[in-house]
Amino acid sequence: MKVNVDYSLYLCTDRTLMTSATIEESVKAALEGGVTLVQLREKNCSGRAFYELGLRVKKITDAYGVPLIINDRADIALAVGAAGVHVGQSDLPCKAARALMGKDKIVGVSVRCLQEALQAEREGADYIGVGAVFATRTKDDAAQVTAEELRGIRKAVRIPVVAIGGVNRQTLPLLKDTGIDGVAVVSAIVSQPDEKRAAEELLRIWKA
Amino acid sequence: MKVNVDYSLYLCTDRTLMTSATIEESVKAALEGGVTLVQLREKNCSGRAFYELGLRVKKITDAYGVPLIINDRADIALAVGAAGVHVGQSDLPCKAARALMGKDKIVGVSVRCLQEALQAEREGADYIGVGAVFATRTKDDAAQVTAEELRGIRKAVRIPVVAIGGVNRQTLPLLKDTGIDGVAVVSAIVSQPDEKRAAEELLRIWKA
Repeated sequence: MKVNVDYSLYLCTDRTLMTSATIEESVKAALEGGVTLVQLREKNCSGRAFYELGLRVKKITDAYGVPLIINDRADIALAVGAAGVHVGQSDLPCKAARALMGKDKIVGVSVRCLQEALQAEREGADYIGVGAVFATRTKDDAAQVTAEELRGIRKAVRIPVVAIGGVNRQTLPLLKDTGIDGVAVVSAIVSQPDEKRAAEELLRIWKA
Repeated sequence: MKVNVDYSLYLCTDRTLMTSATIEESVKAALEGGVTLVQLREKNCSGRAFYELGLRVKKITDAYGVPLIINDRADIALAVGAAGVHVGQSDLPCKAARALMGKDKIVGVSVRCLQEALQAEREGADYIGVGAVFATRTKDDAAQVTAEELRGIRKAVRIPVVAIGGVNRQTLPLLKDTGIDGVAVVSAIVSQPDEKRAAEELLRIWKA
């Protein structure tokens, strides 16, 4: 059976931006602060290193009862027993990821427009990450999605919608009337001097 | 049921070294020349590009009745319906790859010494690629395996053994009394002006 997911505050890791010395510390601090979902994202490491890190991070997320999602690599998601995989438009197609993961695992998809959102839903995505909703330095080339487009996507699909890209304490309130299910953040947590407090603050703003 | 594999002449692709304009042309020429197994190796491309290339190359290898092995990514191997996956010591552990691929798919492992060879066999590898058996520019950092070590590995394991690293027309004859099941080559085929003829020549020397 598929795990029940709270998309409110979705942490995406980034070792190049993090304040902590290790991914494990970064994830733990964010979990202490209340993040409800964790995505492990590693773009420049070997499969073995990603797999071993995944096993270590899975122990941490398990201890907090929070699902772990692996970015891009469905094989590593399955091998470490993660709750699911997240694919972008340059990764395995959603349909292929779904076939590999089976019906009980979570498959999330990054989308930039209504057409990609509808396709992801059609191909069996459990949720979509829509963005960039604000200007972001994490992905320089990310095209911006307007609040109006975000509302249109939210109305057009039945699956949960998470906004990503430039979400922080200042911008988060602007998303609250869009009907989305949560926000995904990278630097607004991992780059902060106190990651736990940053997560707490974002969650407080989200729930207010 | 597991596909029957002839390890005699195992092509590993490399787009950075190939003479052909595309991987598809490179693989097709090598198949025309008689390679008995093909490994698609892509180190710097997106998952989507690797997946789509895998689908295209699979059509070509299927047309020649030759099994296709995908390097490193078990998810892509499964998604494109390849015959198996090949993992190095920096990729998913053999045991994890085997669990993902199931018993009917091929799992190959790169090993550099007797200990790694025995471990790969214990963890369910169908074959091992041992190397580098000669000096090679394809992998600058590859430690060299002596002919004596290669013979020792061949005697110690029951699974097929393929030698890799610096195998070409000049060096191939030196491997013929080691009892191995085949040779894997990169530049000795893909970097040659006539890839088909290079494959034919290697196969002729191997079978002589």
